[in-house]
Order: sequence, then C-alpha cells, then structure tokens
Amino acid sequence: MRKVNRQFLLAARPRGVVQESDLKYHEAEIPQIEDGQFLVKVDYFSLDPSMKGQMEATVSYAAAIPIGGVMRGRGVGTVESSRRADMPVGAQVFGFFGMQDYAVYTGSEPHFHRFEPPVDPEAALGVLGGTGMTAYFGLLDVGQPKPGNTLLVSGAAGATGSVAGQIGRVKGCRVVGVAGSAEKCAWLTDELGFDGAINYRDEDLAAALDRLCPDGIDVFFDNVGGEVLDLALARLNLHARVVLCGGISRYEDTGKPTGPGNYFNLVLTRSRMEGFLLSDYIDRFDEARRELRGWFDGGDLKQRATVYEGFQQLPKALIALFRGANTGKMMVRSD
Amino acid sequence: MRKVNRQFLLAARPRGVVQESDLKYHEAEIPQIEDGQFLVKVDYFSLDPSMKGQMEATVSYAAAIPIGGVMRGRGVGTVESSRRADMPVGAQVFGFFGMQDYAVYTGSEPHFHRFEPPVDPEAALGVLGGTGMTAYFGLLDVGQPKPGNTLLVSGAAGATGSVAGQIGRVKGCRVVGVAGSAEKCAWLTDELGFDGAINYRDEDLAAALDRLCPDGIDVFFDNVGGEVLDLALARLNLHARVVLCGGISRYEDTGKPTGPGNYFNLVLTRSRMEGFLLSDYIDRFDEARRELRGWFDGGDLKQRATVYEGFQQLPKALIALFRGANTGKMMVRSD
Repeated sequence: MRKVNRQFLLAARPRGVVQESDLKYHEAEIPQIEDGQFLVKVDYFSLDPSMKGQMEATVSYAAAIPIGGVMRGRGVGTVESSRRADMPVGAQVFGFFGMQDYAVYTGSEPHFHRFEPPVDPEAALGVLGGTGMTAYFGLLDVGQPKPGNTLLVSGAAGATGSVAGQIGRVKGCRVVGVAGSAEKCAWLTDELGFDGAINYRDEDLAAALDRLCPDGIDVFFDNVGGEVLDLALARLNLHARVVLCGGISRYEDTGKPTGPGNYFNLVLTRSRMEGFLLSDYIDRFDEARRELRGWFDGGDLKQRATVYEGFQQLPKALIALFRGANTGKMMVRSD
Repeated sequence: MRKVNRQFLLAARPRGVVQESDLKYHEAEIPQIEDGQFLVKVDYFSLDPSMKGQMEATVSYAAAIPIGGVMRGRGVGTVESSRRADMPVGAQVFGFFGMQDYAVYTGSEPHFHRFEPPVDPEAALGVLGGTGMTAYFGLLDVGQPKPGNTLLVSGAAGATGSVAGQIGRVKGCRVVGVAGSAEKCAWLTDELGFDGAINYRDEDLAAALDRLCPDGIDVFFDNVGGEVLDLALARLNLHARVVLCGGISRYEDTGKPTGPGNYFNLVLTRSRMEGFLLSDYIDRFDEARRELRGWFDGGDLKQRATVYEGFQQLPKALIALFRGANTGKMMVRSD
C-alpha cells in the first residue's frame, strides 16, 4: 500500500483548451474507512470528453467541481480493505473515484458497479463501462437504427464512436466512420468491420460523404460537431435521427462555436436531433452491460485503448484526448 | 360563373426574396368535369410560408412546381358543378386547389376535406385547416407540453404560432410569444390569453426572455429560426423539446443561414430538436379537426386573418407574408 493518496486537484477552470496548469498535483493522507464502507485502490483512470464541461462548471447535469477539489473521473480499481460483508478485498469495481489513488465507497453511489467475475480492466473502462453504455443507449434508444440504415459516426475511432459503430454493425446497418488519420481509418474498416471510413484531415469531407453515403444518412452519431455535423445535416434521409453525443470540435474553441447552418434540413426531412446523457438510463445499466458483455465475448465488439503509463501522466493524457491523440479509449494505468 | 380560369403560374424560381415577377398571371379555359369529378370554385386562397421552398424546388417532401405550372396552394371553395352523387353543388370544400379560380377534383386527393356543416371560410383555412392542424400536431405530438410547462412560441402572431400558443394554454402551459409589433403583442396577451409577449423589434430579446421565462423553457415552438432559436436553446430546461415548424427568418436570406451556435445545449440539457410536416399525420386529421372544432366553438381558439381582397392580390399577399405584414392567417378572398 502506498504511503500517501496522490491526487490531482482542479487548480483553475479552463479557458479555451485544457492546460496542464488547470490541474495541480497534491498528496493527501490515505482515508480511513468506517463500518459499511470500503477502500478502493484505483488501477485505471478514464479520460472522457465530458471532463471539460465539468472543469469549466458550464454543465447543468453535474455539480461543479470546486477549485481545489479532487478532479472528478471514472476509474476501475480493486477493493483494498473493506468493512462491508458483501464487498470482499480484491473485488474489481467501477465508479467515479476521481483522480486519486484511493477512494472511500459504500457501493450505493450512482454508477458504481462490481464486475464479477472480473474482466479485462481496459474493457471495464471501455466497451463494458460508461463508454460502452453511452454508445449503447445513444445509438439504440436515441438513434433507433434499423437494418439496412446508413449509420454515420464521427469521432469514430474514439472510445464511444468505435463502440457505436460496432453496435450499428450488429444491428445490420451500413456503417461509415469519420476519423482523423489513415491509421485510425484502417482500424475501423479492417478490424472493426466498418463499411467505410473517411480521414477528415486528408479528404474532402463533403465529397467523401457523398461517395460513401450515396443513399443519404439515416442515423448520425455525432461526437464532434462543427463541419461534419453541418455536412451530415445536409444529407439526412426522411425521419433521420441525429444523436448528439459530444462536440469535441468545440473543446478547442474559446469563443462560441459555429452553429450548424443546415439545421433547417431537420424540418425538410422531418428529422430529429437529440442530446442524451448516460445518467438518464441508470435503471437500465444491467441490461446494457449484459448485452455489451455478450457482444464482447462473442467477438462482435472489439476495443483498443490508448494507455498512458503512470499516475503522473493524467494531465498529459487529458490534454492528448482533446487533441484526438487516442485511438479507442483513453486511459491511464496507475503505478 | 366566370368566363376564364384565372391563374397564377410559377414564372421563375425565387432567388432570395420572393418577387412579384416570380409569378405570372394567365387565363386558361375553365376545365370540364367527367364522371366521378366535381368542379371547385375557390373562394379563399391560403398563403403559407412553405410556399417558398416549393417555388424554389428545394424541398424533398413535395414534387417541384414546374416553371409554367399553376402555383400550388391551399384554398377553400364551393362545389360549382358535380358528377359525383356524394358531392352536391354548394358543398364547402378544402384542398390544394392552387392559385386559380377553378380546380377539378374527385375528393380522394390528399388533404381534401368537406366541411359539413359549412364553417366560417376564414376559420376553414386557419384554425380548422392546415394551419390549425400544423399547430396541433407540432405542439402536441412533437412538443409534448405538460401542465405547468413554459411554452415559448416565435412568430406567435402568425397563423400557426397563434394557434400553437392557444393550444398550449388549453393544455395548462405558461405561454410566452415573440412577435414583431406592439399591436401583435397586445393581441396575444389581451385577446388570446398569452401570459407574456415580446416585441422583438423593440425589445432586447435576451433580456425579455430572461424576464418572461425565469424558470427556463420546456417547449419552444419555432416558426422563425435565427436569433430567437439560438437564444431559446441557451435557456432550455432538462428534456426540453424544440419544435421546428418553420424558419421564416431564412426566407429573406439568399445565402446560407447562420446556424444556432447554442445547439450543443441540446446535449447539456438532454433535449430534442425536431422537424415535422403535417402530411405525416394525414391518418389523424379527423381527430385534429374534431379537437380544434371543439376548442374553436368553445371560445378557446380565436383567430384573426389578414385578408387581401381580390384574386389579383395573390402575389402581393405572398410577398407581404414573408415580410411579416400579417397578424394571424394570411389569405386572399377571391372576387
């Protein structure tokens, strides 16, 4: 056991891009547990796009992280000591443990989950964790894909996008992904079974969409916003569904983003554009985990993770996430 | 009976604003009817924002009006002669008769309806016609208002907006309208029972929205787009519904409209923005007409019409519609 509880605290609210100086390293005492509690040692930390809004305190769905408070975040860890009969030492657990070595939990916290039997910890944070469930509910409930539909995914090589595309394949869609490098695109088509992939840094995005979605777009799972959202809106089929999962293109902006000028196509095609948050589906997490686990074990869901090694890499990993440096799930393995 | 069938033909597809020269007056022979048909003399012509997209041939939901073809449009008329046993001379009928004195119908055309007993023809085109049904399905099915919700309506003194707001009142919403003159605003609050109204030409729209919607917006029924849409998106409550009914602000634009930069608030509030078209609800028109008729007869639904007198006023009335010169339904009474 470590001698201190290493932490990253929120030092400043980001202005524009997230910077290393927005987080501050701190060493706290390792907390003591009381009856009904257990102590989790975090093994892997998840880096998620939603962290930026929570750092900025611009979101309404989560309480602001106070300046000087432990940076919030998901992790997977191991029960190190326990004063709960139903939570043995060694159990593999998932929760919002924050950017710290140790967290005290009771097991009734929102989003807490025990993986039993244990799973690959990278999968626990990715396809079987909040990321996978975000893709699951966003694609299936909001996107409502039907067999034969054309599904477009932006940020397709990211953690959520790659799962959404694969679920689309399971559901019989023609799946086209937009990603930021030739290597990412090759991964999508060669390993994940996407029907097509567009490298937006090298290709004319509009022309590529016309070529790969010749029959229009039925479902657009958007992690990016900006240009790709606007171009997709111009190519919607009747009664299309635009799932707003993220808007990573805005994470580099300091000012107000450009809105999608083609939004009016929602009227002309009678389509829907809808945001969602995983927390709204908390009552159905068991269903999602069961389904995702089945696809994962059956080989229909693959994942790749970009893993930074060592606790001290947390700020660098977070910044790299917003620069799109990851393929698949971005995480840090603790030391 | 007239000696010729006066018509307005589509002379040119509008570029930017609609101009008188986009329509061309023409005199055709009065058509003959065959067995199973009847001849309608159009008494009132409806002017609708959707006409612009159909003139431009930029919409996917209706076949393009050919250059030289009769301008498409709704009307209410009287059966002048009939070779159908079930359609007596003198019956009051509604349909897409076009901008012409006479149309041959069989009664099985989409949207055709016989008002029996006859109703006030202004109501037949307005609250009890396509306009009222557009408000009905858009507000109730897409907007899903709940008692106590704050409903914001843009273009609130227009034909559809004024009905949507009144239905919102029937359903127990707090209703705030945005309109373009003090006189229109007074009509909304004093006669239609809106809880508040904003004259966007004179007031600071953002400040007025903050004042009149202090608890945020649950349903936004948007006929306008542009600034009001963007400001409304910034004030959505959780799980809000944005009903995209129209975008009259774009009708004056030649270029691409500005998109709503605050669209990402749909994610942060888990909200939905959705377009719809009346045609999708054709199976439920009887239900809508019955409900609207009940509210109209009971005094819950009032309407005002801006009526231009004489067939030759059709182009002027159409242009005036896009300039917002109307309060309530814009129509032309034939001579």
